[in-house]
Amino acid sequence: MVTGPRTLAQVSEGALLAEIFPYFAAHDGLLIGPGDDAAVIATSGSVVATTDAMVRGRDWVDEWSTAADVASKAFTQNVADVAAMGAVPTSLLVTLVADPQTPVQWAVDFARTLGRLAQQSSVAVAGGDLSSAPTGTLMISIAALGDLGGRAPVLRSGARPGDTIAVCGTLGRSAAGLALLQADAAALTEADGVGAECVAHHLRPTAPVEAGPRAATAGATAMLDLSDGLLRDGDRIARASGVRLALDSALLRPDTEVLEPVVGGAEPALECVLAGGEEHSLLATFAGELPTGWRPLGRVDKGEGVTLDGVPQAPRGWDHFAG
Amino acid sequence: MVTGPRTLAQVSEGALLAEIFPYFAAHDGLLIGPGDDAAVIATSGSVVATTDAMVRGRDWVDEWSTAADVASKAFTQNVADVAAMGAVPTSLLVTLVADPQTPVQWAVDFARTLGRLAQQSSVAVAGGDLSSAPTGTLMISIAALGDLGGRAPVLRSGARPGDTIAVCGTLGRSAAGLALLQADAAALTEADGVGAECVAHHLRPTAPVEAGPRAATAGATAMLDLSDGLLRDGDRIARASGVRLALDSALLRPDTEVLEPVVGGAEPALECVLAGGEEHSLLATFAGELPTGWRPLGRVDKGEGVTLDGVPQAPRGWDHFAG
Repeated sequence: MVTGPRTLAQVSEGALLAEIFPYFAAHDGLLIGPGDDAAVIATSGSVVATTDAMVRGRDWVDEWSTAADVASKAFTQNVADVAAMGAVPTSLLVTLVADPQTPVQWAVDFARTLGRLAQQSSVAVAGGDLSSAPTGTLMISIAALGDLGGRAPVLRSGARPGDTIAVCGTLGRSAAGLALLQADAAALTEADGVGAECVAHHLRPTAPVEAGPRAATAGATAMLDLSDGLLRDGDRIARASGVRLALDSALLRPDTEVLEPVVGGAEPALECVLAGGEEHSLLATFAGELPTGWRPLGRVDKGEGVTLDGVPQAPRGWDHFAG
Repeated sequence: MVTGPRTLAQVSEGALLAEIFPYFAAHDGLLIGPGDDAAVIATSGSVVATTDAMVRGRDWVDEWSTAADVASKAFTQNVADVAAMGAVPTSLLVTLVADPQTPVQWAVDFARTLGRLAQQSSVAVAGGDLSSAPTGTLMISIAALGDLGGRAPVLRSGARPGDTIAVCGTLGRSAAGLALLQADAAALTEADGVGAECVAHHLRPTAPVEAGPRAATAGATAMLDLSDGLLRDGDRIARASGVRLALDSALLRPDTEVLEPVVGGAEPALECVLAGGEEHSLLATFAGELPTGWRPLGRVDKGEGVTLDGVPQAPRGWDHFAG
């Protein structure tokens, strides 16, 4: 007699949906929710849309990440992209593609956390899709929609020489957390202080979502969310805008100093800050004064690429298929 | 020296995107397209949103389906769901999750066909995501957005006793095509006449997308797209509306007769028509006269479930995780 955990193969699609739907609360802007062919969401004349997938074995490993962790990271990745346009996230579509031997509990834990985070941010879970997959496969994909509320979107292409480069949120925390876990999996439970914060940020990143629309209102000229590292993402603004982003290491010192004891020195700390991905802080440029919550990292100049104290930096960071 | 086809592992993410983006043409309603954190799409006050994934080994096998076939099926699944709400599809988000050993050509062929179908239907490819995946994994996920143009969405819950049940499009073709392929893979190239049409509909289904918004304008009381079979999808309308769908076998006879020589008899032909999935025709109910292109299948009665000539039918059809 089989006595392991109940798997997706042992429940019908309808039964699974019945377990999951209660976590996706009703929501004012959700005119038609899950259960029909498609959802209907209120908007103010245009809709912001993005999508991001996570794959077990690539974007997470079960040894480190629970279903709740995966839900947190997937949620943050997507709403940060919406916020980086200057929009308010309104709704999500959620896809689960899973080996039928996946425990039902994984799907339920994932849905519960996603539903909780969505509700906390007034985001509706509007619909989704369930698919079975070959042995061992587990992946989730989220599409997030947002509303600009009549504001113009903040693109990557609007930075102009003289603008101030600024960040809202932390730098290098996720990479430092990943480094701790890679050095010793015991960091999962044994790290403390800033180290524990870094591990937590790597597993369950948060993004300053409300700062995105506020930055748009405050006149941000360019903005994105830091998903692939300060240098690589900075280079994206530089290319799109036809400018140089001149970073000042003195302005990064608070970020590196706090990471030095965690990663064991100034050099690896700086590397986390410059090249560490999955941070999901917002990077923006402003022509005028910085809004509350933002701190300067340097200045936009004529030219191209990203420099640190005047030295050109290669746009190193994460590439999805290489290596 | 390796001389096989070029794989995703051999190109950077940027290089792959540069090969793919040209297939995704500019589009009036696409205010901001791929390349920023998120896309921005014009809407008329609300947005219809749906998502559907396809997984190699579950939703297709490479022996039967080319990348172009997968693109066709994924496109149709998603735009049919939007149309079934009475909305006009406006834009897609496309996710590719692939083993790095996947040939670049597969991704390029997929993008080219998706781009062509989108352009033919005035649908924008607004953005997407690329992720690498463990060995052997290949899956794509599409999220589709649509615009109701001020119309109320047509739900599954609006059917009322006395309404006429009607279909726009074929019945049972996809299932008959699948049966041919399962009986003999040579059907892929050797089937002819209706058999070839069935194989083609299974591999590259089309949906009567424009009929959705027109049905909404004509007063459809309930509508969905036939993705899991007439009985299972009919049962969804019956449950949501609190009614019985009374199908009349005489009205299904044209559908079964044409399939009889293909699948070898009246019984398997009727099974294709009643339980065959992935057809993507539109099933709707109308209080008044049927719009052009729709034909009656029966009548909405008081009661529950789906009957055929008065005999209750189990809602058999496709379940994603069972078996």
